[in-house]
Amino acid sequence: MNGKKLHCGIIGAGRIGRVHAETLAFRMPESQLVAIADPNCEAARAVAARCNIPKVAASPSEIIADPEIDAVLICSPTGTHADLIVQAARAGKHIFCEKPISFSLAAIDAALAAVKEAGVLLQIGFNRRFDANFMRVRHAIASGEIGTPNLLHIISRDPAPPPLSYIRASGGIFLDMTIHDFDMVRFLVGDEVEEIYTAGGVMVDPAIGEAGDLDTALILLRFRNGVIGTIDNSRKAVYGYDQRVEVFGSKGKIATENIYPNRAVVSTGQAIYTDLPLNFFMERYTESFVLELQSFIQAVIDQRPAPVSGIDGRIPVAMALAARKSYDEHRPVLLEEISGEKSLTDHS
Amino acid sequence: MNGKKLHCGIIGAGRIGRVHAETLAFRMPESQLVAIADPNCEAARAVAARCNIPKVAASPSEIIADPEIDAVLICSPTGTHADLIVQAARAGKHIFCEKPISFSLAAIDAALAAVKEAGVLLQIGFNRRFDANFMRVRHAIASGEIGTPNLLHIISRDPAPPPLSYIRASGGIFLDMTIHDFDMVRFLVGDEVEEIYTAGGVMVDPAIGEAGDLDTALILLRFRNGVIGTIDNSRKAVYGYDQRVEVFGSKGKIATENIYPNRAVVSTGQAIYTDLPLNFFMERYTESFVLELQSFIQAVIDQRPAPVSGIDGRIPVAMALAARKSYDEHRPVLLEEISGEKSLTDHS
Amino acid sequence: MNGKKLHCGIIGAGRIGRVHAETLAFRMPESQLVAIADPNCEAARAVAARCNIPKVAASPSEIIADPEIDAVLICSPTGTHADLIVQAARAGKHIFCEKPISFSLAAIDAALAAVKEAGVLLQIGFNRRFDANFMRVRHAIASGEIGTPNLLHIISRDPAPPPLSYIRASGGIFLDMTIHDFDMVRFLVGDEVEEIYTAGGVMVDPAIGEAGDLDTALILLRFRNGVIGTIDNSRKAVYGYDQRVEVFGSKGKIATENIYPNRAVVSTGQAIYTDLPLNFFMERYTESFVLELQSFIQAVIDQRPAPVSGIDGRIPVAMALAARKSYDEHRPVLLEEISGEKSLTDHS
Amino acid sequence: MNGKKLHCGIIGAGRIGRVHAETLAFRMPESQLVAIADPNCEAARAVAARCNIPKVAASPSEIIADPEIDAVLICSPTGTHADLIVQAARAGKHIFCEKPISFSLAAIDAALAAVKEAGVLLQIGFNRRFDANFMRVRHAIASGEIGTPNLLHIISRDPAPPPLSYIRASGGIFLDMTIHDFDMVRFLVGDEVEEIYTAGGVMVDPAIGEAGDLDTALILLRFRNGVIGTIDNSRKAVYGYDQRVEVFGSKGKIATENIYPNRAVVSTGQAIYTDLPLNFFMERYTESFVLELQSFIQAVIDQRPAPVSGIDGRIPVAMALAARKSYDEHRPVLLEEISGEKSLTDHS
Repeated sequence: MNGKKLHCGIIGAGRIGRVHAETLAFRMPESQLVAIADPNCEAARAVAARCNIPKVAASPSEIIADPEIDAVLICSPTGTHADLIVQAARAGKHIFCEKPISFSLAAIDAALAAVKEAGVLLQIGFNRRFDANFMRVRHAIASGEIGTPNLLHIISRDPAPPPLSYIRASGGIFLDMTIHDFDMVRFLVGDEVEEIYTAGGVMVDPAIGEAGDLDTALILLRFRNGVIGTIDNSRKAVYGYDQRVEVFGSKGKIATENIYPNRAVVSTGQAIYTDLPLNFFMERYTESFVLELQSFIQAVIDQRPAPVSGIDGRIPVAMALAARKSYDEHRPVLLEEISGEKSLTDHS
Repeated sequence: MNGKKLHCGIIGAGRIGRVHAETLAFRMPESQLVAIADPNCEAARAVAARCNIPKVAASPSEIIADPEIDAVLICSPTGTHADLIVQAARAGKHIFCEKPISFSLAAIDAALAAVKEAGVLLQIGFNRRFDANFMRVRHAIASGEIGTPNLLHIISRDPAPPPLSYIRASGGIFLDMTIHDFDMVRFLVGDEVEEIYTAGGVMVDPAIGEAGDLDTALILLRFRNGVIGTIDNSRKAVYGYDQRVEVFGSKGKIATENIYPNRAVVSTGQAIYTDLPLNFFMERYTESFVLELQSFIQAVIDQRPAPVSGIDGRIPVAMALAARKSYDEHRPVLLEEISGEKSLTDHS
Repeated sequence: MNGKKLHCGIIGAGRIGRVHAETLAFRMPESQLVAIADPNCEAARAVAARCNIPKVAASPSEIIADPEIDAVLICSPTGTHADLIVQAARAGKHIFCEKPISFSLAAIDAALAAVKEAGVLLQIGFNRRFDANFMRVRHAIASGEIGTPNLLHIISRDPAPPPLSYIRASGGIFLDMTIHDFDMVRFLVGDEVEEIYTAGGVMVDPAIGEAGDLDTALILLRFRNGVIGTIDNSRKAVYGYDQRVEVFGSKGKIATENIYPNRAVVSTGQAIYTDLPLNFFMERYTESFVLELQSFIQAVIDQRPAPVSGIDGRIPVAMALAARKSYDEHRPVLLEEISGEKSLTDHS
Repeated sequence: MNGKKLHCGIIGAGRIGRVHAETLAFRMPESQLVAIADPNCEAARAVAARCNIPKVAASPSEIIADPEIDAVLICSPTGTHADLIVQAARAGKHIFCEKPISFSLAAIDAALAAVKEAGVLLQIGFNRRFDANFMRVRHAIASGEIGTPNLLHIISRDPAPPPLSYIRASGGIFLDMTIHDFDMVRFLVGDEVEEIYTAGGVMVDPAIGEAGDLDTALILLRFRNGVIGTIDNSRKAVYGYDQRVEVFGSKGKIATENIYPNRAVVSTGQAIYTDLPLNFFMERYTESFVLELQSFIQAVIDQRPAPVSGIDGRIPVAMALAARKSYDEHRPVLLEEISGEKSLTDHS
């Protein structure tokens, strides 16, 4: 490490890059932002100005080659993740990479192999693991508070679909949206999914269907330890971002509510009502973005394993591929059809 | 009808027979209880004494043959329902029959044919349709309050499994317990299920598995109109009777909470807590039992169709058979594999 | 008692008389309704027909003189209560009397003296003591669940003011409406109020003020045991009947919510909302009316003291007079200014 | 102003000084921290190191005299506030001062006169005005969402009493704790209190009584516009920090709930429960501390009036004195007995 503080470079000055830059700049005294790169120079310069980043790099390679930099945050488009991981690993940088690593399991495997060989730390940006609601649920399961888990439900609905251009490049609902839920079920249950069955449809916007994607899905999951559960996804919940979990076990259940901008309840002659929930992930998961970076920085400093590993980045991609296969073939699909037990164990 | 009041006879003096007797005796001035029959004479006599029923009949046939009686309530064991319906229909009695009509679709078809031929009214005891929570959900869907429904979830968990002897005779979890939820999804969505996929297991008590049944199930449903949904069943929720519904549509969602004995919230140094929900169906659905009988009596008096028809009694049985078949064969099962479109239409 | 069942007569066929008649007729096998009287013969006859009451008496005296009758329910206007209690007591009848006994403490004292002399049982109709919410709060206090009580709040708001004619005859907001809350604080705390301070005003309808009454009040209470608390009254809550309690103690607090017709929550693009609470006391307190009569009937049968005694009828009237005096004189008023300790003890 | 950024100095490196320093350093790019002073040099140095403050001043005077500094934040003990305001105003600094300004109205008046003469901006640290819950309530009132306000309740209970040494120096519960609630009622109602009546006692710890203070209080308020309301204070709520408001108006009511660390609900065989609320003001009001400073900085930059003025700092002190007088003299006390209408108007 360079001196007392962990020196970081950011690749990508889009929405999530900006969020991470602000977190590192203003809320994490243990780190120091050294450089940022983005093909959109203006965006990079704006973030640099706001966050006191001394250098706007011409390219990701410049950041990766910078000997002053201890760790890189990969916040560029998905298509570039795997290659950048390989490069950064070879340059001996610790890596924080946004999800998903890649749509291709082979590309992921190559990236993970490079990380392993270099002995660097890789953390994947599944920020929801750091959300207070979901940490509380995980605690209830891990501590035995609700006994042996039997049934699980995730509701995960976006307030509005992204632009069609985004949907076309996103890899589809399972790789773009459900992937967070696939990570969440593994995190909560603490075991792997064995089989997936998907029902779904185009209920929000026919154009999404024409783009080859679904906008609404119910996914039934069976875990190796016997737990069964569902994930409920919609691209459009008119009342706002709907993010809930319920786990039922032998000694009880735990269920979470959405997060609201305030806890005021109004009663009038028409109804008893509250405002709508926090509308989207930037507001809803604000604190989790901070916590995940703190965990990354601290893991690097303490030379401990990352709390969300490379294999944690690989498996949800396999699950997404299985979910799509199940939908296409209209049958339950074993995860090992996609990504055998053996390869899973290789990386863990 | 005999005079101003509808004269009723009850077949079966068990738990549900007693409930209906009390409702008719004390809360429904439009009806008059004339006779009750039960192989257990003591039980019949006790109910008769409590509810001022003048006559304890020696057998169901005596009730069915009684010219003073306008309507019979069939509250005897499931195995007897279909035959009693046939007998009562032939005797020109209006019929209220507890669910399920039979485990056999052929027997159900015979019963419904007899009813049709006799031109009597038949209502099936799916009381939950008369529950304030579920009526409110149905209203939200029917009125367009939440737009076009897309996704649906039912949570339906019992506080504790019934005795094994009951489970062995019950026809299994799908015919005994889920059957209420199968009726509920049809009632709420207002359309028919096309396909069912079942995951499940024995998570509560191995003895239930040894008896050939499941005690935990997740059922994924696809409706003809495109709605997809799940039913979540467990034989044992340690915190009590868990009966909730959530429906998500293009203009919003509606979700129900459990019903509690009081609305007090206690805050101590350990937690913020409430008492457990109303523990089982007799407490939770008290009012719905009254309302369903009022609807039956009123339908007979007004010569209107029953709010829960014979075909409403048939289809959930077909769904239960499909759910079991899906579980056994580990694949999605079309409802028409069990009970073709044609026969459904025949009866409606 | 006359035979196995307690024979009852009802004086008054208005709203509350009808409710009690239905309860006795349809939900209480231990009692039998023998006669009803009301100056409005038609009303009396209608109730008699609905509830199978064999006799419509010409006057209250006829009921009180009827040797067949064990107990009378006094549901006539307040002005008649005290006299009817005296007459009924002298005739050896047990008495259930609606609140308030009288607006005059002297008249109440005379009535209670007659009851004492006759050795009959007198129960006052403070039905809210039998409500599940408030019983739960009382239990929390009595059992020590929230430790020593320190602070207490009652919110008690009606959905709409009664007609002005009613207000003019009602004795005013404190004797008509707050009297229930005065009873409730004594019931919950289990001790007596020492001092009352009242703030209030005319905020709902100027005509109420012109009739000499208030329509909005905040009453600050100090108990002998040190507890301090408030009662919040309004004649008009546009969102419906608002009936809540909060008690704060050394080990925690307990607070109750309103009761709703269903537990459905709707989420739309505008708000998250529920239906309004049960609108008025007939719906909100339905079960408490049944329970209070059951308690009365059972107390008579078991020869146990009434759960709400004559002195429980007297003290809230004294509190109402003190509340008004405090408002008029704009200062804290000791209860003993109205109704000295001595007279309280005389009756208890 | 010195350049683009507002240069700030902080007087006081205790708990609240540290909070404001972190806010200015990490979350407010529009300001720059130049110096900090505290008699406890070590504390000042620690904050300076953490927040990149270049200078640790030897005394408040050094900060006030520093020509580089545009604004001072007075976070020192209450006894020093008024004098420091006078000094800072004379030096032409804008001033953010923690509440209360002083226990003496004369001292406050002198401070406000100095501010007026100097033409600087003074903002008082009533941070709760910037809390999302209370802003929502204010919005409901100001926008007419609940009509004309009639009744108001504040519940404001601390999780545990401060040390006795603090209580002795704090000016008592009304000046130390209720003062926030006195500010809140003015903010919410948008009008002034006319009369105060206080009931209270020592229910938490006799030592607090021996120190001449109360630990539990109910305060009844009457506003000039007719609104009546209560404030409920306790020094010890075992379940944690209890901060709620309810306002009832002609068109509805609005009520707020506490804020919890998560929105998970656990159901077990014993109870349905949640974790305790956020425990104290640093967690509960985190965001409001940021928002109030942003408002201060922005008001200075935009040369707009402070959102919480000097007179907003004066009146709650007068209310606290009135509350104590009412308690001591056991009678309603007019605010003008303490602080006449005239002097109020003088400053506004």
